[in-house]
Amino acid sequence: MSLTNALPVDAASAAKSASHILATLPASSRDNALTAIHKALSESKDEILAANARDLVQARKAAENGELSSSIVSRLDLGKKGKWEDMLKGILDVRDLEDPVGKVTLRTRLDDGLDLERVSCPIGVLLIIFEARPEVIANIASLAIKSGNAAILKGGKESTESFVAISKVISEALEATDVPNSAIQLVTTRDVIPQLLALDQYIDLVIPRGSNELVRFVKSSTKIPVLGHADGLCSIYLEHTADPDMAVKVVVDSKTSYPAACNSVETLLVEQAALETVLPPVAEALLEKGVSLRCDAASKKALTSKLDAHSAATLQDAADSDYDTEHLSLVLAIKTVANISEAISHINVHGSHHTDAILTSSAPLAEQFMASVDSAGVFWNTSTRMADGMRYGFGTEVGISTNKIHARGPVGLEGLMIYKYKIRGGGHITAHYGEGEGQKRFKHERLAL
Amino acid sequence: MSLTNALPVDAASAAKSASHILATLPASSRDNALTAIHKALSESKDEILAANARDLVQARKAAENGELSSSIVSRLDLGKKGKWEDMLKGILDVRDLEDPVGKVTLRTRLDDGLDLERVSCPIGVLLIIFEARPEVIANIASLAIKSGNAAILKGGKESTESFVAISKVISEALEATDVPNSAIQLVTTRDVIPQLLALDQYIDLVIPRGSNELVRFVKSSTKIPVLGHADGLCSIYLEHTADPDMAVKVVVDSKTSYPAACNSVETLLVEQAALETVLPPVAEALLEKGVSLRCDAASKKALTSKLDAHSAATLQDAADSDYDTEHLSLVLAIKTVANISEAISHINVHGSHHTDAILTSSAPLAEQFMASVDSAGVFWNTSTRMADGMRYGFGTEVGISTNKIHARGPVGLEGLMIYKYKIRGGGHITAHYGEGEGQKRFKHERLAL
Repeated sequence: MSLTNALPVDAASAAKSASHILATLPASSRDNALTAIHKALSESKDEILAANARDLVQARKAAENGELSSSIVSRLDLGKKGKWEDMLKGILDVRDLEDPVGKVTLRTRLDDGLDLERVSCPIGVLLIIFEARPEVIANIASLAIKSGNAAILKGGKESTESFVAISKVISEALEATDVPNSAIQLVTTRDVIPQLLALDQYIDLVIPRGSNELVRFVKSSTKIPVLGHADGLCSIYLEHTADPDMAVKVVVDSKTSYPAACNSVETLLVEQAALETVLPPVAEALLEKGVSLRCDAASKKALTSKLDAHSAATLQDAADSDYDTEHLSLVLAIKTVANISEAISHINVHGSHHTDAILTSSAPLAEQFMASVDSAGVFWNTSTRMADGMRYGFGTEVGISTNKIHARGPVGLEGLMIYKYKIRGGGHITAHYGEGEGQKRFKHERLAL
Repeated sequence: MSLTNALPVDAASAAKSASHILATLPASSRDNALTAIHKALSESKDEILAANARDLVQARKAAENGELSSSIVSRLDLGKKGKWEDMLKGILDVRDLEDPVGKVTLRTRLDDGLDLERVSCPIGVLLIIFEARPEVIANIASLAIKSGNAAILKGGKESTESFVAISKVISEALEATDVPNSAIQLVTTRDVIPQLLALDQYIDLVIPRGSNELVRFVKSSTKIPVLGHADGLCSIYLEHTADPDMAVKVVVDSKTSYPAACNSVETLLVEQAALETVLPPVAEALLEKGVSLRCDAASKKALTSKLDAHSAATLQDAADSDYDTEHLSLVLAIKTVANISEAISHINVHGSHHTDAILTSSAPLAEQFMASVDSAGVFWNTSTRMADGMRYGFGTEVGISTNKIHARGPVGLEGLMIYKYKIRGGGHITAHYGEGEGQKRFKHERLAL
């Protein structure tokens, strides 16, 4: 890993060259590099935590002056219980995943002695832009090396000391491996993001990991494809045949288990026929957990008639904007809909195409919902918070994508791969094939993988 | 199909709504729509060819005034032998392809009663921008309907009469089918491309089909992902163990069978050791076919010593720019390299990542080349012109992509698909799972597809 103060264009150009070498390394070379990184980091815990402590001192000062939120300070802290161990374990977890490089996904005999093969290969050069959490650098470096991609890493300035310390260790560890030095570049100079985002001749994919603002800024500032999501405006549709106990559990989990997560629910769409039956116990449980309910007129009326006066008094009126807002806090917008079609339309127009759920006892309605809602995750009778790479069993997660091409939903190593077509021939030429007399026909015989 | 003079934003918004319906239609509805279109077009041959004749009159006038190239005029002509029949046959070919919608590509039991499924689904709304060839409209409408995508079509102004006639017929044919009217929109008003390219909230993918200039303009003017390729700068590396007869056949086919095609070879890299052995017969055959050879000093010297004086006199000196130029004509740049590493580096830096080939008798060198060259197609002992969806057996082709994400190489129906994750649960919530005591673990059991 290079710790570079070079110009972004030089860093990117070097990463591109390195990507061509990295792409041809066998799995053992890439895995050995991860073992070496793990060992080196384990042995350098003290100096890295000391560097992290220096970041924390600066950050706490900034927080006292109101220049930094306390949640960022908390995310900076590598010394927090379990964080260091998780970071190290993550490297070995990634190393032990199945090799994503060189998988043959199509094999066709075009003609005798002329075989076509589609083989997975790395994308090339990734630009990863992330904010405060310093452990992300080890995670991302691992994912890049495992998948055979070069990476340019740009971290938030609050973690500079930690990043520099970690990358120095990783850099030294890589020296003794087959992974080229410039395959992983850490850029620490400030204000280089716009320059990096202009380097579409070298950088193949940008992955921003951080706030909605960061992702939106990146998406609007580059021609390079961006993998990620800005918003997570997830909805649940509560249909009148939903089991009330199940509905209580699922909605409470979806809203309160981690309100700041992108997969938390923000809008509860309630079927008119469920207003006085399933909704009241759900609302009661949410209010008990401290959730502010912003209701439309019909749901407010129904709840007012069913809840005790004290609870009813806490109900708020929803503004139109509440149905277009990712609150990321204990606020839930409630809206009444006549039927499933209205719910689907609302979600497709107002949602963020991230994850949406239906709670119902009707399998046909559930299937209709899952087929019609245009989102990366469409769930029946389970929490929106299930949308997660670890929970899906992907082992690790690059991020969650709401893109409509390439990769959607939680993205694992597969999302860092593309493919190429190989043909092995024996001097075959196109002029010999055609519909004319005496011309050959292609066989197009599908071969086993 | 709507023939719209509506504002682009209204056309795109209507296409988005229609895409949500189209995405849920069964294969039979989509196939029936294609049958109906085929029947209607067959019955309307006379009126469509009459409209096409009006376009041709205008175009020939423009060509006489030097405002239009004669090759565009030729591409306009729907009455050319076989073109009408091919267009009609193409609709049924697309109809008879395997349904790309609803394919389950991953199925995991997360826990008892909690199953994850990854299912292919349409991308949403495609914007297809194409130039003169009027038959493309039927091809594209077929591909969009088959894949469950809505499409906005913007054709070149030279074919307006033909487009309007074809789309009117298609529109009427669709009236009696389940495919919503606004799923396919033809936009005929002029100068709307920049407006359409700004509608990233409605349009999910842009596919430009036309000149390099068109593709480059589109890529630089939109935040919407673009599928396609601007350049096709393909190279062949001639290694000294290549069989000379084979090399002659393959290089001649790659250069001369269709010089204006994107998969024609533009640069011949010759191993130093092949300069006086394999190169001379190849050069001779190319010169016989009328190819201009632009040589570096070493290859010119070698050829001058081997060819007859007349042939040698036709050799030209290559300028540096020749190795970065897609000539699209009977011009070939020749460059000497010391070895395969130099060839690979040259291709990765100067090529367009489209299709590149090695001619050699050495399997290890061929494998090294195919692993190291960062292109959509990497071929051993066969013509670069094999890079084609029909030749690959994809049945049809949306275009050839040099993108590094989503789809690469010749793109068939698969390239118009993305996927969504469905989870069917029984009230499962995330709070119950974790590493803590009394918490559940996910099972992550891979199920059969």
